[in-house]
Amino acid sequence: MLSKDGCQKRRERLWRALPAALEWVLIADPRHVHYFTNFLVNPLSFSGGERGWLLLERSGKATLLGDNFTLRSRSGEPYVDDEVMVKWYDHRHSVINRDHALMQAAEKVADRLYGRNGAVEAEWLPVGAFELLGLDHERHSVRKEANDLVGKAPVDLGTLVRSLRRTKEADEIALLKECMAACAAGHARAKEVIAPGVTEMEVFLEVQKAALAAAGRPGLVYGDFRALNASQPKAGGLPTQNKLAEGDIFVLDYSVVLEGYRSDFTNGYAVGTPTAGQQRLFDLVMAAQQEGEKTLKAGVPAKAVFDAVERPLREANVADKFAHHAGHGIGLAHPEAPILVPESEDTLLAGDVITLEPGLYIEGIGGIRIEHNYLITETGYERLSQHTISLV
Amino acid sequence: MLSKDGCQKRRERLWRALPAALEWVLIADPRHVHYFTNFLVNPLSFSGGERGWLLLERSGKATLLGDNFTLRSRSGEPYVDDEVMVKWYDHRHSVINRDHALMQAAEKVADRLYGRNGAVEAEWLPVGAFELLGLDHERHSVRKEANDLVGKAPVDLGTLVRSLRRTKEADEIALLKECMAACAAGHARAKEVIAPGVTEMEVFLEVQKAALAAAGRPGLVYGDFRALNASQPKAGGLPTQNKLAEGDIFVLDYSVVLEGYRSDFTNGYAVGTPTAGQQRLFDLVMAAQQEGEKTLKAGVPAKAVFDAVERPLREANVADKFAHHAGHGIGLAHPEAPILVPESEDTLLAGDVITLEPGLYIEGIGGIRIEHNYLITETGYERLSQHTISLV
Repeated sequence: MLSKDGCQKRRERLWRALPAALEWVLIADPRHVHYFTNFLVNPLSFSGGERGWLLLERSGKATLLGDNFTLRSRSGEPYVDDEVMVKWYDHRHSVINRDHALMQAAEKVADRLYGRNGAVEAEWLPVGAFELLGLDHERHSVRKEANDLVGKAPVDLGTLVRSLRRTKEADEIALLKECMAACAAGHARAKEVIAPGVTEMEVFLEVQKAALAAAGRPGLVYGDFRALNASQPKAGGLPTQNKLAEGDIFVLDYSVVLEGYRSDFTNGYAVGTPTAGQQRLFDLVMAAQQEGEKTLKAGVPAKAVFDAVERPLREANVADKFAHHAGHGIGLAHPEAPILVPESEDTLLAGDVITLEPGLYIEGIGGIRIEHNYLITETGYERLSQHTISLV
Repeated sequence: MLSKDGCQKRRERLWRALPAALEWVLIADPRHVHYFTNFLVNPLSFSGGERGWLLLERSGKATLLGDNFTLRSRSGEPYVDDEVMVKWYDHRHSVINRDHALMQAAEKVADRLYGRNGAVEAEWLPVGAFELLGLDHERHSVRKEANDLVGKAPVDLGTLVRSLRRTKEADEIALLKECMAACAAGHARAKEVIAPGVTEMEVFLEVQKAALAAAGRPGLVYGDFRALNASQPKAGGLPTQNKLAEGDIFVLDYSVVLEGYRSDFTNGYAVGTPTAGQQRLFDLVMAAQQEGEKTLKAGVPAKAVFDAVERPLREANVADKFAHHAGHGIGLAHPEAPILVPESEDTLLAGDVITLEPGLYIEGIGGIRIEHNYLITETGYERLSQHTISLV
């Protein structure tokens, strides 16, 4: 759960980053409404897929907009000053289009935007809501005012918030650690149940159960749960009814999502006794990960991390069998900046939470990937994931 | 999974319902993109929360818009003629704001909208995308053209699609039956594990595992998993660490969601031996459900169904302890029309899938709710849920 203090700090950072003349912003990406308020429509509720919007004013005031059923389907207490809640359903009458209830809530705050410089999150605020806000006052155009302020390009609120998201506050790191403890519990369970004849789906169900039991609450578990082998060294995606067989490496590269935040780490477990070839792949990706770890520190170019991860693979002449990123940022989405790839223009920042995930996929031998999660600091890193990486 | 034939039929119904002068529609509600194409971003993927949009043209052409990673995170094969896919991520370069890749995809089809009557789904299409479409041609305004067509009110595409959604096609009913078979498997497992000392969360984990094992694939399980008793006769929401105790009724009112569609049915299980008072509550809600079932048929007013469900409760002088709807429509959302409430203006339609869920919550005795799901037909109904409703 995000904290009141964390939400406050994130809003303060937002206002510091915005042009001084802006007096309000209307946030519409559900991830960003959550980021600034702890209001998240629980995806495991009958309101999954519904939305609330957030009006932030430079005075510090935060106003949440939504219909009564959506606002009550929240994962936790929102830290806002006001809720503009439109009654959509009362258990006595038919319902209107639920989206229209939300739009009515937006219309109720139109007066507070009129004549004041502001910006909307244009990638997420629907044109219907935008028009309602504008139409209240014939000569008022939200977009025009934003444009006048900074020239031709409107304030790109979405991109700005995405950049703020990289620097995690203490509450976000605490929540990420909860996800990671749950994810590690799932990995430990996987190790117990992986055996020839067990299906990928059966392992997934055991992992999901163990992870959520450790979390102590429902959440989402997604990722790759696939058996790789000499004839199919690369595959990804959710589990199938495929039965594990001697000679497979079962790669579990998955996330546990609690209140929108996620872990993302991996181990590849040999089914039965690993071959010498599989053991060599494992040793190489372990070396790659260790080389990558040595570089982790705020200020380091992301491409330098990639280069370090790839080095042991180049030296072993298998770099072409490592055909994906060395890692990426995680948080409210996946993947996100910094992207650890050869031509990355990103630089590691203190507060980034990233993954390192070297993999090798070689026809005739098999496939493997391992992964840890790290918090980047000014002096180096803190490894956040605590699962045991081992082939057996 | 939705079928090609079902998607085709739904699009044909849409075009028949739209004004003849409209030549294109731009669909942006993720549920509706799915409804017409079988394109659904898997909520259990790293792209959960991302979106694709859909351009439908009267010629029959369907064009899906999105970024490369979102389009590949789909639950199944989309039935479209074309995909306008913008490369967002290539494992070699940093990424831009992912929403901007989606908006670039929209910009690529702007030429096909220019000078032709059309309508956008204004509750979901972001103003940023709308402006991009309009700005390509200075004097072109998507909204103005839609307005000119039908007077002052633009075509309300969202509400129209919601009304179409009530009449389920064969592929939707088949998918709902899969959800219901999985949900029933979860109920059967609940019956095995419910006992004094077991936590709500432990029951949830067993139910989730059994339901998804029956489904044969990952999916979402959400709903009420709460113990009710004489001192707390009404509670709802996801499970807690509360331990079940002798004298509780454990109400499982939950949904299994597979590819966006959902079951929604209930049983209340006595923990230990039910009291005479609990047995009486159970008998009353059973009678209420049976009275409701007798009314189910296309053409019947929804409020008449409510009245029938409530009748046995009125006769027993406990109608005031039944303080919610008698049921509602389900499908891609929950609740949705028809709403079975005393002042409903809805009428049952052939193709509606609904719930009947009488409940009673009496201080000093306890709380219970039971629920089945039904397909409404011209001649009556087909009960879709096959779980055993029983107190013990």
